[in-house]
Amino acid sequence: MTQIFDNALLFNPAVGEWRLAAFSVDDGRVTIVGKPGALKGENVTDLSGARVVPGLIDAHVHIESSLLTPREFGRLSLKNGVTTVIADPHEIANVSGCAGIDFMLEDAKSSPADIFFMIPSCVPATPLDKGGAVVSSKDVASYKNTPSVIGLGEMMNVPGVLSGDPEVMAKLAVFDHIDGHAPGLSGEALCRYISRHIKTDHECISAAEGNEKLSLGMYVLLREGDAAKNVAALSKIVNDRTAVRCCFCTDDRHVDSRVREGSIDHCIRVAVRSGMSLEHALRLATLSAADCFGLTDRGMIAPGRVADFCILQDGAEFFVSAVYKNGVRTSSLPNPGSSLDCICPPFSCRIPAKEELALPNGRLRVIGLVPGEIITESLDSETARDFHKVVSVDRYRSEGFGVGLVKGFTFVKGAIASSVSHDAHNIIAAGVTDEEIIQAIHAVNDSGGGMAVVCDGVTTVLFLPYGGLMTPLFYEEVVTRMDDLFVRLMLTGASPAAFMNLSFLSLTVIPHLRITPRGLFDGDAFKDVPISF
Amino acid sequence: MTQIFDNALLFNPAVGEWRLAAFSVDDGRVTIVGKPGALKGENVTDLSGARVVPGLIDAHVHIESSLLTPREFGRLSLKNGVTTVIADPHEIANVSGCAGIDFMLEDAKSSPADIFFMIPSCVPATPLDKGGAVVSSKDVASYKNTPSVIGLGEMMNVPGVLSGDPEVMAKLAVFDHIDGHAPGLSGEALCRYISRHIKTDHECISAAEGNEKLSLGMYVLLREGDAAKNVAALSKIVNDRTAVRCCFCTDDRHVDSRVREGSIDHCIRVAVRSGMSLEHALRLATLSAADCFGLTDRGMIAPGRVADFCILQDGAEFFVSAVYKNGVRTSSLPNPGSSLDCICPPFSCRIPAKEELALPNGRLRVIGLVPGEIITESLDSETARDFHKVVSVDRYRSEGFGVGLVKGFTFVKGAIASSVSHDAHNIIAAGVTDEEIIQAIHAVNDSGGGMAVVCDGVTTVLFLPYGGLMTPLFYEEVVTRMDDLFVRLMLTGASPAAFMNLSFLSLTVIPHLRITPRGLFDGDAFKDVPISF
Repeated sequence: MTQIFDNALLFNPAVGEWRLAAFSVDDGRVTIVGKPGALKGENVTDLSGARVVPGLIDAHVHIESSLLTPREFGRLSLKNGVTTVIADPHEIANVSGCAGIDFMLEDAKSSPADIFFMIPSCVPATPLDKGGAVVSSKDVASYKNTPSVIGLGEMMNVPGVLSGDPEVMAKLAVFDHIDGHAPGLSGEALCRYISRHIKTDHECISAAEGNEKLSLGMYVLLREGDAAKNVAALSKIVNDRTAVRCCFCTDDRHVDSRVREGSIDHCIRVAVRSGMSLEHALRLATLSAADCFGLTDRGMIAPGRVADFCILQDGAEFFVSAVYKNGVRTSSLPNPGSSLDCICPPFSCRIPAKEELALPNGRLRVIGLVPGEIITESLDSETARDFHKVVSVDRYRSEGFGVGLVKGFTFVKGAIASSVSHDAHNIIAAGVTDEEIIQAIHAVNDSGGGMAVVCDGVTTVLFLPYGGLMTPLFYEEVVTRMDDLFVRLMLTGASPAAFMNLSFLSLTVIPHLRITPRGLFDGDAFKDVPISF
Repeated sequence: MTQIFDNALLFNPAVGEWRLAAFSVDDGRVTIVGKPGALKGENVTDLSGARVVPGLIDAHVHIESSLLTPREFGRLSLKNGVTTVIADPHEIANVSGCAGIDFMLEDAKSSPADIFFMIPSCVPATPLDKGGAVVSSKDVASYKNTPSVIGLGEMMNVPGVLSGDPEVMAKLAVFDHIDGHAPGLSGEALCRYISRHIKTDHECISAAEGNEKLSLGMYVLLREGDAAKNVAALSKIVNDRTAVRCCFCTDDRHVDSRVREGSIDHCIRVAVRSGMSLEHALRLATLSAADCFGLTDRGMIAPGRVADFCILQDGAEFFVSAVYKNGVRTSSLPNPGSSLDCICPPFSCRIPAKEELALPNGRLRVIGLVPGEIITESLDSETARDFHKVVSVDRYRSEGFGVGLVKGFTFVKGAIASSVSHDAHNIIAAGVTDEEIIQAIHAVNDSGGGMAVVCDGVTTVLFLPYGGLMTPLFYEEVVTRMDDLFVRLMLTGASPAAFMNLSFLSLTVIPHLRITPRGLFDGDAFKDVPISF
């Protein structure tokens, strides 16, 4: 039956204006948009002038980083007004390859929010990384005609692109839409990267970087994750002309942040607080993202498009009060139920003994955390203060572990470990004493994946049985368990971002200094380096 | 070898700015865009600060209306700075169906400008029209994977769309991109039309109409043809927000207008004279058109995109001084040579005798021309003054002819006839005396297609042997012959637009009153009407 929504103060991203309107919905699609009172029918909802905006779009996210499965992620997204998600299942692909990707695609079919996928382009992240799987160009091509697949995921192998590596070129040739990942890349190198038809970048951290990428034809995705928070710095690149070539994304963001702070709705709030107009922020979050990814059936409340929209709360700040997906109020949707099973390789770490964690004397390299960023600094132990030990343990091959130093964690006691450790998702741990670090690694390994805190002799674990990355629990339950874990985390003196920060320390595609099971890695020179200078 | 263009004052449509820059070209593609002086090489062209803009894009054109073949049209387009053409071979399709379309696609392969095609959706224009061919949904689908084909051509069958006609629906289902044609359509009917995923409209004649279509999610193509000149009226709908969803198109424009006034370059000049900023006009003419049609490899001078660009003349008005296609200066390109053969059905008219052109007494309907538009008015012979006789003769079936009256031609003597007569391309003629009208019809029929002027007993014909629509001559020669014809035309007292106006009088999909071989046609009621009230 035709539904009519009358007296909506409708935001139209195509023209950038609010206008009082009525609109009708048939079979989940918008049919007529007209003047208030103009549409007649039996099923009329009078919105009494409430503001209505198109459903929000998350332009780039790794669902696994939320710790949730796709269908549960979708259920949570709707609470934040996000009705369309563009996901890159890069994390599970590093653990279990195509089987992991297939799990994500299949489980997403039961998501109440629409989830589109980009196929991971860099599994493993670099030829040096040994994760649980390899996704070849042939594997990528096998997803070419999968309906929910719309492109190639972030191409992080910048050297491979610039050198014309045949396997990289073969992956780039599969899809028309290619997401990029070019942190700090500039000038000629950036031009050569873009010239391979790489369309987007979500790694900009400054307005200058964003403006350069925009002017060279890229779409810039403004990211507000848990570890990397770039929206405030990038909000000044958005104006009437560039708003059509910018989007928002959450990239890596835990379930608890999503519940407490939000998702793309949070990006909008941060942007507006940073001086962006609400209308520009809404443009980014709706039609600009739809256009960027070729999703011509959404992005605005207009005839023929999916009836995805949010009714806003009154008040100056942007908060959704009700969300409609395909014309159905999402608060009335049934729970999509338990996720599918996800079969992943077992954990088989060779866990180091205490004496194996000893470090040489003299000047040592120290990884420096950068607040609000995922890039790190390369520091010197002679000048750096207050650093801790960090250990990365191969979880797939019992082949060993690397030991390093990190500055920026605020531990006063205890240790933490996690099987979420980009991108290979080995076990990573950091803390005050070697004994506690080993105990935390044991806890994650013995649990078959998870996040562990060791403090005052007590070990607390959040189990992540799906590849050591995700839990099949409902998000409300996951948040409760995270709260328990984070209470323990706070006792160690670490900040709430400690797990997210820890998880990025082994990400070899990000400058400058990282840790892998082989030891320290120079993300600029793209090679292993010794800990001693 | 790498070419470098240095010290270019480059217009960047993505950010809407001019910036002094250097850029390099390899294998026809832009590779690096950098600061002036930053690129080193052996093959450097110093542009000394000249303005450089991306190659212009004509978003919708019927090449046949230029009277030229595709390759010759492409050669002429480059003179105007138009490096990409989106063509709908609707005219030749009405004459000879898929064979005509195939000729256009094949001949276009030798065009020095890139020509992409939309497959005609409405051949014949309405079920009542009897042209030379039918293009079925199955025919449309047969072009689905043709590389140069990017969508479905303007869907003019508005009643068929609104009623859900199965054949129309089948055509709409073939391609993602569907061009629209909805003159004057508004409100609920427009919404229902758009809800079939029809993306563009190039028939807007007022800012109100353009704004309504923009706000409902359509792309609006601002048209400057020979008969319909809408750019001035529509220029006020363009602002920083809407410029990304507007394009320019020439639709129907004779070769002589293209040579003397221009093409999309002319649209830019008209727009700027009407108050649009040059930067907005350039956005429409480049990146907005590329984005609208999914041509992600062009629209701006940026890495990886085709090296199509224009160097501008100094001075306030927009004129190109040099045009580069794939990095090659087009003035150095060889002539692409003679067009392919185009085999079309012969002319077999039953030409009326003088007494058959007699009209009844009493109040008669009169077609009223509207200056600068292709819509017509429906007038009354009791109040209208200075009307002439107009005759439409079936060229395919010897089935007959229709006779009507038209006001707006300024003949003082003589008659004209043409085999360009949208959309069925029967022979249409108008003039002062029945004898001269018949003589002009004879001239076109006996020539196997063309445009004829009869004046003072002398008959002058421009031969159009390709389906009665096009000539295989080089454009310079065609202009000379048109000049000869138009000198004769001027002697009749008619305006230079007379042939273009005449050619639209039988276009049944445009309101309000038209003429076909069956007689008068009511374009609103979509049915034949008698000449008497």
